[in-house]
Amino acid sequence: MTLKKSARGAISPFIVMDVLRAANLRQESGKAVYHLEVGQPGTPAPKKVREAAARALEGDLIGYTDALGVEPLRSAIAGHYKTKFGVSLDPSRICVASGSSSIFVLAFLAAFDAGDRVAMAAPGYPAYRNILGALGIETVTLMAGPESHYQPTVEMLKALDKPVDGLILASPSNPAGSMISREKFAELVRYCQQNGIRLISDEIYQGISFGDVPDSTAVEFGDEAFIVNSFSKYFSMTGWRLGWAVVPPDLVRQVECLQQNLFISAPTLSQLAAVAAFDCEDELQANIAAYARNREILLNELPKAGFDQFAPADGAFYLYADVSKHTDDSEAFCEKMLDETGVAITPGTDFDPFRGKSYVRFSFAHSEQTMLGAVNALRDWKR
Amino acid sequence: MTLKKSARGAISPFIVMDVLRAANLRQESGKAVYHLEVGQPGTPAPKKVREAAARALEGDLIGYTDALGVEPLRSAIAGHYKTKFGVSLDPSRICVASGSSSIFVLAFLAAFDAGDRVAMAAPGYPAYRNILGALGIETVTLMAGPESHYQPTVEMLKALDKPVDGLILASPSNPAGSMISREKFAELVRYCQQNGIRLISDEIYQGISFGDVPDSTAVEFGDEAFIVNSFSKYFSMTGWRLGWAVVPPDLVRQVECLQQNLFISAPTLSQLAAVAAFDCEDELQANIAAYARNREILLNELPKAGFDQFAPADGAFYLYADVSKHTDDSEAFCEKMLDETGVAITPGTDFDPFRGKSYVRFSFAHSEQTMLGAVNALRDWKR
Repeated sequence: MTLKKSARGAISPFIVMDVLRAANLRQESGKAVYHLEVGQPGTPAPKKVREAAARALEGDLIGYTDALGVEPLRSAIAGHYKTKFGVSLDPSRICVASGSSSIFVLAFLAAFDAGDRVAMAAPGYPAYRNILGALGIETVTLMAGPESHYQPTVEMLKALDKPVDGLILASPSNPAGSMISREKFAELVRYCQQNGIRLISDEIYQGISFGDVPDSTAVEFGDEAFIVNSFSKYFSMTGWRLGWAVVPPDLVRQVECLQQNLFISAPTLSQLAAVAAFDCEDELQANIAAYARNREILLNELPKAGFDQFAPADGAFYLYADVSKHTDDSEAFCEKMLDETGVAITPGTDFDPFRGKSYVRFSFAHSEQTMLGAVNALRDWKR
Repeated sequence: MTLKKSARGAISPFIVMDVLRAANLRQESGKAVYHLEVGQPGTPAPKKVREAAARALEGDLIGYTDALGVEPLRSAIAGHYKTKFGVSLDPSRICVASGSSSIFVLAFLAAFDAGDRVAMAAPGYPAYRNILGALGIETVTLMAGPESHYQPTVEMLKALDKPVDGLILASPSNPAGSMISREKFAELVRYCQQNGIRLISDEIYQGISFGDVPDSTAVEFGDEAFIVNSFSKYFSMTGWRLGWAVVPPDLVRQVECLQQNLFISAPTLSQLAAVAAFDCEDELQANIAAYARNREILLNELPKAGFDQFAPADGAFYLYADVSKHTDDSEAFCEKMLDETGVAITPGTDFDPFRGKSYVRFSFAHSEQTMLGAVNALRDWKR
């Protein structure tokens, strides 16, 4: 007989991964491709990280680690908050896991039961919604746009007809690149704490910023938020699959037991190597400077190709563009663009199930050469 | 106000991880410890794997991969089934993920909804039950013992008062080490297929066997089972966090979308290095010979220390011992043993919530020296 498939497992694809595959297929056929689709630095891990990995490869058994991670890395992460934000953190609150992705799984399972309601802004990272759905948690969409700087607000939470159990906040955000001000951040942390809402603060683009909004972290404003961070973006270590959480004290043991059972521990070589990541500031700042140049290229040149309405792009490495004057079907639009110009970008439908058909996301994480090739190809595009 | 913790996140610890921590603390205080608790080879990854990792570290960006894994590795895994079992598999059915742990999460989410019922043998791997619980799936325990060779049977399934949606089968099993015969395996696969039961076949100890029962895989008997395997045990790569699945054709896209959203992709360096793992037969067979010697040491010497009732130990690297003549509290017994002899073993309560207080598990994955040290210490133990 035909066996059952689960209903909850029938989640949406992460469209950018499907775009990436189409782009790679085109590339394999010998055609030019400009990778502005995937949120991945074009640079490898910092040199000292790679050197530390090579040493570990020689000298370490590379066995399982403690579920929450190796002690030197957890201490280095805690130290990073002291250096960057002046916040003292007990390393026992740090959980290291296989990418921020698995941190979201741990956070959602530790904080929310099936049937709970969690709010998030649209546009936003699609995996939030898809993971929440797979875990039986209802997503409550907060429609964000220019008027709220593409961020959720206390007013939006107050306007809900039913209270929520959680809120996901991302600053810098993906795809909009917007950052929340310190004042609004503090206000949201306080409101969540006072109203029984567990804040999940996605800070994985922290350190990649270009404007006047200063970097901040929810842990500056209280201990109750679940902070998610990653070595993938600022530290340029995507394929190393390493992220971390600052776990609220009341959830540490719960997260530890979940990690023991669901994942055992994070990749050991990545953990041992990542200790060196906090000692690579020059190389990492050079990456940020390169992103800033790429951003300028797109902001200056894309309008000449008819793209001129962007979300703020305070941070992260994305431009989220309103393309409603060109299309009402961003998926078809992106496919046509890839096919006719070799420029791979991501349709807004990945980020906003309601308005995404009128938006696209450009990533400027790749090289300057890629940006220049893309803007040239788009300028000549007769769409 | 106090924020909510989830009820489902309050899962049991994976006790062996807590034992490991206690053992490591003892070791750090300068006392001798014999690690017979953790199911982890004492050997590093094979030499060619480490060399391939070093090359990738030099030459590869180490970025994200396709969600299901890099093509050369998926093809190598498919080829492994041809070489070992004579089975032709389309590499598109292979999913590579961060350890078999995350494969279980993917498999359970793809196959089962909240409220579904999944059967598993006790004693068995505790994380099955704990992950199922976190995902809202009911565990149905099949009480296994010597009479069923510590394996589930068709008769046990037939005797259930309510049908189940899934069955987890592990051969070689953890903690019992028992292996199912080809005949019984084929019978179970057929029964599951005919009765709408999704079989999850945990084959992570495949290749580590000592007796007369031949290695087999569910894929020899049909395409509907979800096969879980790992580079951690036979290939001696625990900390590399790399496992694979042979996915039933009807679940491939569902698993791909889940992986894209929940985990993105498996650690890239591990993927690139693991391609070489299938070319290391001599080194890996030498590991198996060492396990066989360790097993003999324990089987010969433990009876002199009063441990003489073991489950079969056809495969894997465990001896599951009935200690009911010594204790009815295996957790306290194991703590006392660690404290007084330095021998770390795992209480049966990790594996069997019903009878585990009378059982303990010895792992013989570590070195011969560790085994000899342990049996000496236990022979002199005045408990």
